[in-house]
Amino acid sequence: VSEFNLINHYFKQLTASKADVILGIGDDCAITRVPDARLLATSIDTLISGVHFPHGTSAEDIGYKALAVNLSDLAAMGAQPAWVSLALTMPDENAQWLQGFCRGFAQLAQQYNVQLIGGDTTRGDLSISVQIYGFVEPQKFLRRDRAQLGELIYVSGYLGDAGLGLACALNKLASTSALQSCIQQLNRPLPRVELGQSLIDISACAIDISDGLAADLQHILDASQCAALIELDALPLSAELKAHYAERVDWQQVLTSGDDYELCFTIDAAEENKLIAIAAQLKLKLTKIGVIKQGVGIEFMHLNGAEFTLTTAGYNHF
Amino acid sequence: VSEFNLINHYFKQLTASKADVILGIGDDCAITRVPDARLLATSIDTLISGVHFPHGTSAEDIGYKALAVNLSDLAAMGAQPAWVSLALTMPDENAQWLQGFCRGFAQLAQQYNVQLIGGDTTRGDLSISVQIYGFVEPQKFLRRDRAQLGELIYVSGYLGDAGLGLACALNKLASTSALQSCIQQLNRPLPRVELGQSLIDISACAIDISDGLAADLQHILDASQCAALIELDALPLSAELKAHYAERVDWQQVLTSGDDYELCFTIDAAEENKLIAIAAQLKLKLTKIGVIKQGVGIEFMHLNGAEFTLTTAGYNHF
Repeated sequence: VSEFNLINHYFKQLTASKADVILGIGDDCAITRVPDARLLATSIDTLISGVHFPHGTSAEDIGYKALAVNLSDLAAMGAQPAWVSLALTMPDENAQWLQGFCRGFAQLAQQYNVQLIGGDTTRGDLSISVQIYGFVEPQKFLRRDRAQLGELIYVSGYLGDAGLGLACALNKLASTSALQSCIQQLNRPLPRVELGQSLIDISACAIDISDGLAADLQHILDASQCAALIELDALPLSAELKAHYAERVDWQQVLTSGDDYELCFTIDAAEENKLIAIAAQLKLKLTKIGVIKQGVGIEFMHLNGAEFTLTTAGYNHF
Repeated sequence: VSEFNLINHYFKQLTASKADVILGIGDDCAITRVPDARLLATSIDTLISGVHFPHGTSAEDIGYKALAVNLSDLAAMGAQPAWVSLALTMPDENAQWLQGFCRGFAQLAQQYNVQLIGGDTTRGDLSISVQIYGFVEPQKFLRRDRAQLGELIYVSGYLGDAGLGLACALNKLASTSALQSCIQQLNRPLPRVELGQSLIDISACAIDISDGLAADLQHILDASQCAALIELDALPLSAELKAHYAERVDWQQVLTSGDDYELCFTIDAAEENKLIAIAAQLKLKLTKIGVIKQGVGIEFMHLNGAEFTLTTAGYNHF
């Protein structure tokens, strides 16, 4: 099967046809239309076997996750998903693997009405680059450099589960049935697209947590030139994670393990009631974890006033 | 150096700042504006060491070529280049290599006023995925499925030089000084962006020749449901290639070796005078090589009426 036919065979029918796609897969470029009065939001992310997912991850989970992490970037801007391009490098053409990959990818693509508009397949070690496209309204999107002094810091969902799942998947932890939900969180993160879009009226500042809360919140602080106080005991921890750690939570792990794909965002205290309504509407846990303050860096405090100091900030590829 | 700082350090200053980039590198997404009454043209291409460029290719040539092959996709649509995203996977952080890569990439980016708006750096075997963005006018772009019966088939530049250059680079040929220009053609292809934009008033159908004329023209024929007659002796061959082959041109090589990045396009005979003016204005060789006809496939004929039959159609990754 030629590269051209491979794309046609596996990918052309993968996703729905949208009216704003003038020319999809099969030409030198895709031709698409951005709606009037909308801006384009785009992000590219690469997933490498053994780095972004453990060796042995199922093809379906890889396909799902490749799209999920990109949708998470759109979520962090409050953008509406639109289209996606896929550059897939793999060692050989394995029909079963490709079918699984496509199934996982298509599941999310259909859920978010995202059309696959471009692709490139090449031979090499397994590597997946996904380029996502979405729309935002001018002036109404979330960015890293908009945190204001005194704003409250919130996160969605739970922190640290994917990190525990990874330790399980790498056989560093005994795989208990309780930890299965952590492996699910690692392989099937839920991009917070609806949350991001709901936040644009009450927040200006968000990031998605891909490298751990400490590292990603620090990106907000660097861009916004401020500091944060985080109440450690307020951090949202799942029942599974609490059960795993019993009385001694590994805060280092919770704060620095990656792959949570939750949103961290800031709001003015006056908007808290609206946020509670959003949480109820989305049936999503949203937790106040701290406050933006003057200075540099993140201060992690326990309720009893004890300070916690991180030894490393987060995942680092180099 | 963290991934985040790596992007900032090497890539943020790489290209010019454009007014239509609202938010560039450094957030979860880039935010950009497509001009009113324009459509977005996008393409993604991956380059793998040992597949898309020989091992040992200089970092600067790799950086140049990664952008050139994507600009060539825009050229094949008649699109105006706008922005670019870069997903770079490399085994380690080598400052010298990165500086070279950026120099080659930035040279073309500046030449075509393309701003780098997004990036991802990961650790792994060297692999470069580039996503390019450009603009076209509605109804005024070149596509593969618009060849019409009786139209003339043209190509830009020369065919087969990059293939000879590759054979040289792989030490399959003695590297003569004459073949240095072929290696240059392999490593530094000239994307035909200006030609593509000039063609939109007189042509509806084009493709860029990345996998060899035979394979890429066949894509046009498949999409347009027609056949082609190609006059072999009309094919544009460089003085270097002719000298290399002396009296026995290897037509198989000329028709199937990749990396030429010339445009193949069709026009109505009534537009030939306008095309001659374009060639003169761009100082670019444009050669009539055949005609679109009814049927299936490509017939290659010599002037003396002898037919030539290909043994394989072009480069195939799988």
